[in-house]
Amino acid sequence: MNYSNEFSRVSQSMKSSMIRELVATTKNVPDMISFAGGFPAPATFPKQMLSEIFEEVVKLEGYDVLQYGASEGDALLKQQLLKWEGYDKLSLDEMLITNGATNAIYYYGKALLDPGDVVLCEAPTFLGSLVAFDALEAELHGIGMDESGIDMNLLSDRVKSLKKIGKRIKLLYTIPDFQNPGGITMSLPRRRELIAFCIEHEIPILEDNPYSRLRYTGKPLPTLFHLAHHDFQRSDIVTEAVSFSKIIGPGMRVAYVKGSKELVEKMGSWQQKVNVTPDCVSQRVVARFLEMGFMPGHINTICHHYHPYLRKMLEELQINMPESVYWTKPEGGIFVWLELPEHINADELFIKARDHKVSFIPGSKFYPTGQERFNALRLKFTYSSLEQIEIGIKRLGQLLKDESA
Amino acid sequence: MNYSNEFSRVSQSMKSSMIRELVATTKNVPDMISFAGGFPAPATFPKQMLSEIFEEVVKLEGYDVLQYGASEGDALLKQQLLKWEGYDKLSLDEMLITNGATNAIYYYGKALLDPGDVVLCEAPTFLGSLVAFDALEAELHGIGMDESGIDMNLLSDRVKSLKKIGKRIKLLYTIPDFQNPGGITMSLPRRRELIAFCIEHEIPILEDNPYSRLRYTGKPLPTLFHLAHHDFQRSDIVTEAVSFSKIIGPGMRVAYVKGSKELVEKMGSWQQKVNVTPDCVSQRVVARFLEMGFMPGHINTICHHYHPYLRKMLEELQINMPESVYWTKPEGGIFVWLELPEHINADELFIKARDHKVSFIPGSKFYPTGQERFNALRLKFTYSSLEQIEIGIKRLGQLLKDESA
Repeated sequence: MNYSNEFSRVSQSMKSSMIRELVATTKNVPDMISFAGGFPAPATFPKQMLSEIFEEVVKLEGYDVLQYGASEGDALLKQQLLKWEGYDKLSLDEMLITNGATNAIYYYGKALLDPGDVVLCEAPTFLGSLVAFDALEAELHGIGMDESGIDMNLLSDRVKSLKKIGKRIKLLYTIPDFQNPGGITMSLPRRRELIAFCIEHEIPILEDNPYSRLRYTGKPLPTLFHLAHHDFQRSDIVTEAVSFSKIIGPGMRVAYVKGSKELVEKMGSWQQKVNVTPDCVSQRVVARFLEMGFMPGHINTICHHYHPYLRKMLEELQINMPESVYWTKPEGGIFVWLELPEHINADELFIKARDHKVSFIPGSKFYPTGQERFNALRLKFTYSSLEQIEIGIKRLGQLLKDESA
Repeated sequence: MNYSNEFSRVSQSMKSSMIRELVATTKNVPDMISFAGGFPAPATFPKQMLSEIFEEVVKLEGYDVLQYGASEGDALLKQQLLKWEGYDKLSLDEMLITNGATNAIYYYGKALLDPGDVVLCEAPTFLGSLVAFDALEAELHGIGMDESGIDMNLLSDRVKSLKKIGKRIKLLYTIPDFQNPGGITMSLPRRRELIAFCIEHEIPILEDNPYSRLRYTGKPLPTLFHLAHHDFQRSDIVTEAVSFSKIIGPGMRVAYVKGSKELVEKMGSWQQKVNVTPDCVSQRVVARFLEMGFMPGHINTICHHYHPYLRKMLEELQINMPESVYWTKPEGGIFVWLELPEHINADELFIKARDHKVSFIPGSKFYPTGQERFNALRLKFTYSSLEQIEIGIKRLGQLLKDESA
């Protein structure tokens, strides 16, 4: 069989992951310092605690967690989540457990999107979501950002022009806290503005929240879901996806969404068809982890672990970067974003950097196809040692000085 | 937001699970004996062994299994699977680990199916797959079966007539061993005929294999994949999905497919977008379970556990059913299928049976929409006690005698 002739239309047009191939070329290069990828530090995984909980859960609750679970997710986990987050008035029907947050984003898209429907997103934004929306055949429109988040003027203009030509805007996708790739956190006034705007224009918001608990300095801001729920009495407008990938470990594939009952039910209906249910053992383990009260202390430990690396990276950028380079100064998360002079193409810089034994992700990878900007790059600070950060940023700084000269 | 107006076309047309609602009406009825559902018996879950392996794996390999895993699945698990199944010449690229077998079926469909493409399947067949193919907007054609499996004459006629009107036949879906819902096992000559036919007509085969290891009597038959691989040198024509749901526990969501590298890669590409990866902890635990050599003994234990229930059910059917009722005599699996006289509608019988405190799944649920047959029903024998089987079949027999009178 020549399957490539048999593939569905979407399957034929799907691109392979450029990042993957790109990053692969930097592997096994001796002395390479990599700020690419999005992996959390293994040192932050609560191995010992989880190991004991896994043992207990399978031994004592195996009859239950090794059996088929509900497509909506483990009720015990949902109860613990609502308690942990302090939503005592939400019902379990307004929540769905999924196999990671990308999985939740996929179901959300399946529920709402017909081919050609418009998805609005920040530009730049998380590549995994861009790829998922692409696979759902959505028409992606990236909206520029400033230091306070998505640019409301650009958003308003775009919505106007899209409506004028009769386009159906199905959703706005945003990462308000420590955004991937920018590290930008949406300000409180901007959050309110965005919610009010989306209520006015009836645009559902998909809030992706993998990083908000990773705050090392400054004051936490309420999520869009929280604001919509408490201040606007319109929690239906926002669906929030929360991932445990960065606060427990991505290998366990446990995430959840909160949102309108009607929408969450439809997403659950897709889950039944696509996955039947997420892994039931892992769901219950997270439930017991929360129930035992380990979460706040563990998140505190992670934040203390990551903070010095962020500080070090910001210090080294300050010391080593030429004046023409701008970078974000996040108070948490795992990424920093560099804006380079207009004439520098980070896709090309990546090749040169590889020869200088330092790597990153070129900024162009975080834009919808055809809307790329090339003079930017993303650095991850959570996977290298402090010494590697010092040496790696020195190498990158020298390279950028040479390029700027 | 009124989300129901915003739902995508497919989402709007998706039916809710009728079986779920049906079965729900029999819950909490005191003294109800249920032969409905498809759950394995919790007594067969290897809780103690798994509990220890989970503990060890998370403690000793947590840095790895709590991290993001490969979209293609855990290489260690794949190696163990190829060893267990004895495919020493297959490469890891010809295998994909998925979040259960339904998930594999979904990716297979995403890789190949455009809306309106034809899927051929046995009639009756597994409801979960019917629902998944429906969600993929395939045009389902159910092909009748005899005691040896799918009817080749009916298949050949259907393929001819579909080709005549220019339809694109994208795949044939089959469950050769202890088929759900029929309990029928495809004979060896039929297997060869089917493969030869599909090679001739270039129709890819999706072989769903959740039950083949649950054989209590008789001789195991080679899978279609095995035959295609060894006897036809055409393993590319068959993709085999194997689930651990019935031999370890469905809560762990671990399944795998073997097939053409090209097709498996495309399925992996869908996995990246939909799930990123299956649960990495569970994957590794299954790998260690296999590596430690527990599987053959454990499967033996399950078979010894289930066999008396199958025997009991067949005995009780023999004693209690009126002559007008025919049933399958499977040598394994978890289901028996009853064919009733033409005038009996099992959808209606279900309501009456509920009043008599016995339940089953009406046969009509296992056919593509519009192709239903109503004078049949499915019984599961793996979830009731021997005493319940005796009483339940007596109740059902009496009811059918009353209906036939």
